[in-house]
Amino acid sequence: MTIRATVLHAPGDIRVDDVPDPVLGHSTDAIVRVTAACVCGSDLWGYRGVSPVDGPHRIGHEFVGVVEETGPEVNTLRPGDFVVAPFAMSDGDCVNCRNGVQSSCVRGGLFGSTTRTGERLDGAQAQYVTVPFADGTLVKTPAMPDEAMVPSLLSLSDVMGTGHFAAISAGVGPGSTVVVVGDGAVGLCAVLAAARLGAARIIAMSRHADRQHLATEFGATDIVAARGEDGATAVLELLGGTGADAVLECVGTKESMEQALASVRPGGRVGYVGVPYGGPELPVPQLFTANIGIAGGIAPVRLYLPELLADVLDGTIDPGRVFDSEYPLDRAADAYADMDSRKVIKPILRP
Amino acid sequence: MTIRATVLHAPGDIRVDDVPDPVLGHSTDAIVRVTAACVCGSDLWGYRGVSPVDGPHRIGHEFVGVVEETGPEVNTLRPGDFVVAPFAMSDGDCVNCRNGVQSSCVRGGLFGSTTRTGERLDGAQAQYVTVPFADGTLVKTPAMPDEAMVPSLLSLSDVMGTGHFAAISAGVGPGSTVVVVGDGAVGLCAVLAAARLGAARIIAMSRHADRQHLATEFGATDIVAARGEDGATAVLELLGGTGADAVLECVGTKESMEQALASVRPGGRVGYVGVPYGGPELPVPQLFTANIGIAGGIAPVRLYLPELLADVLDGTIDPGRVFDSEYPLDRAADAYADMDSRKVIKPILRP
Repeated sequence: MTIRATVLHAPGDIRVDDVPDPVLGHSTDAIVRVTAACVCGSDLWGYRGVSPVDGPHRIGHEFVGVVEETGPEVNTLRPGDFVVAPFAMSDGDCVNCRNGVQSSCVRGGLFGSTTRTGERLDGAQAQYVTVPFADGTLVKTPAMPDEAMVPSLLSLSDVMGTGHFAAISAGVGPGSTVVVVGDGAVGLCAVLAAARLGAARIIAMSRHADRQHLATEFGATDIVAARGEDGATAVLELLGGTGADAVLECVGTKESMEQALASVRPGGRVGYVGVPYGGPELPVPQLFTANIGIAGGIAPVRLYLPELLADVLDGTIDPGRVFDSEYPLDRAADAYADMDSRKVIKPILRP
Repeated sequence: MTIRATVLHAPGDIRVDDVPDPVLGHSTDAIVRVTAACVCGSDLWGYRGVSPVDGPHRIGHEFVGVVEETGPEVNTLRPGDFVVAPFAMSDGDCVNCRNGVQSSCVRGGLFGSTTRTGERLDGAQAQYVTVPFADGTLVKTPAMPDEAMVPSLLSLSDVMGTGHFAAISAGVGPGSTVVVVGDGAVGLCAVLAAARLGAARIIAMSRHADRQHLATEFGATDIVAARGEDGATAVLELLGGTGADAVLECVGTKESMEQALASVRPGGRVGYVGVPYGGPELPVPQLFTANIGIAGGIAPVRLYLPELLADVLDGTIDPGRVFDSEYPLDRAADAYADMDSRKVIKPILRP
C-alpha cells in the first residue's frame, strides 16, 4: 500500500508521490491521519536551492490531524483524538525538554528531516505521518474542533508558536514598544503575539497592502513601509526619538537583522526567529555599547502549545487568518510556486 | 593651583602629574574630593597598548569621595556628602536614563574619556574630580561610612554593579545553574551577584588559588580550573550532562566568549560584560540552533547602585574583598604594573 505525500526532488521540483504506508516502528509512535498541513517559508529554502537538497525526500513540518493508531506505550492519546503537531518532534523527558527547550530535544528533529539520533522523520505534507514519542510531541484538543477552527489550530504547529517565541525572547510585556521585521506568516503572528502579551505600541514593517491590513487587524498600531535607514528613521520618529523596547526579527537575512538592530533602543532586545540562511551577523561592539540583547532561535513550539491552544479554542486569538489560500495536496506544486512568488502568504494543503 | 592625577602618556607610561584644579563648569556640576579610586581591568587595555592612546590624558573611572562644592542647580547633594560615583556619568533624565540604561545616557560618558556631546571628563585616579550632572550621576550614603566599608562602596562604582549586570543579563534567579568565566574582580563580583540572586549552583572558572578561594567565599559551589574544551566538559559533568542556565562572561576575549558559549545549555543565556577588545564573535547558527540568548554590555551601574548600596551598608554583601592591595596615588605606576602582571587582583589608589 502507498499514501500520497509531497517529495522535494530537487530545487524547484516538488511533486506529490506515492510513498510507503506509515508504520508503527516504535512502541511510542503514533500514526496521524493528516487533515491539514501547510507550506512554511523555510520549506522554500530547499525549493529555491538556497539550501542543498540531498536527494528526494518527504517535506513539510506543520500539520494537524486525527490519531489513527498508537503504539503500546503511548499513554495520552488514542485513535480518534484530534491533535496539533509541533513542527519538531520531542520526547518530552530529556534534559532539554525538561528545561522547556523541546526544539533541542536530544532525540528530536523536524518533521521531514533527520533526528539527532539519525532517524528519518516523515514529512507532514502527506496523508499520514508517523510521529515518534507521540506523548511528548502531540497535543490533543479536548474535542473534535469545528472545521472553521482548523486554520488557527494549524498555525500552532509553527507560525503562531514561533511568533510568540519571538515576542517572549525579546521580553515583550505590558506596555512594551515593539517593532516586527517581516510580514510573512510568522511576522504577522508575532504582531498578534505582541498584542496578546500587552504591548502598547506595535510597529509592523510591511510593504504589502494585504499584509499591512492583517497586521493592523492583529493589533499593529503603526505600519512602516520604508526599509533600511529610512525604515529605522521612521520607527524612531514614531517612538519619540528612540528605538523600540523589543524588535521581533522574523525573516532571517542579513538585511532583516540589520533592520532589527537599527530599530531597537539602547538596552532593548531583539527576538529573532527567522531561520538564518541569509547570513545575519551580530556585531558585538554595537550590541555591547548599547546593551542590546539577542535571543530566539528555533521556537520550542511544544512548550507554548497548551497556552496558545486555550486562547485559540476560546476565540481570544485567531492566528489562522494568516492562511490566505488552500490547495488540495495533489496541487502542492502550485502552492509552492504561489508562495514562492509571494502571490499567497501561506497556503494550506488538504490531503 | 594644581592637583595630582594619573595621566596615561603612552602604552606602559602611566604617571602621576600635576593637572589643573577642578572647576564647576556647569551649574549642575559637583566637585568631589576623591578618597579612594582604583584601577580597572579595562584601564589596562590602553596601558598595554591593546587600544590606542591618543595623547596624554587623565585616566580612571571608579571612585568614591566627599562632595567639596556644588553648582547652583545641584539639588540632591551638598558639600560634605559621601558619594559613590558610577564609572559613567549620566544626566538622569534623558530617554535612555529613563529606560534604565544610564550607560547609554545621551549626554553621558566614562570618567577619563569624552562624553557623547564631546566634553572631556576628568579621570578618577586623582585628588579631585568634576562630576557633570551630579544629581543624575552620584549616589550618596546616608551618613559618612566607616573606613572599613570604603572598599565595598568603591566596588559599587564598577565591578560589583558590572558583575550584577552580568547576572541580571543572563537571567540568574533562584535555583539557576551558573558558570562564571573570568576570575578578575568583575568575575568574582559576578559570583557574589549570582549567589545574592539565589543561584543554586555557581561554577567559577579559575586557575588561581587566591581567586578560587575568594570565589568560594563569595558563593561559588564549584571551581573548574580547566579551560577550553576540557573546561566545558568539566562544567557539563558537574551539571549532569548539560550546560548552565546562565553563563557570565567577564573577560571580553574571543576565547572567553567561546568558553561561555560552550558552557551554556540549550535555551540558556550568556550575560557578557567583558569589554570586547579581544574580538569575541557571536556565531549566529550556533546560537540559533540551541536558542542561546546573549545580553549584557556596559553595565548601567547607576541603575543598580541604590539596591546594591543598601546590601553593602547592612553587611549582606562584602564585594570590597576583591581589592587585595592598596597604593598611595603617587605610586599608581606600581599599581598598574602589579595588576598587569596579575600580582594583584585589583588595587585601590588613595589620593
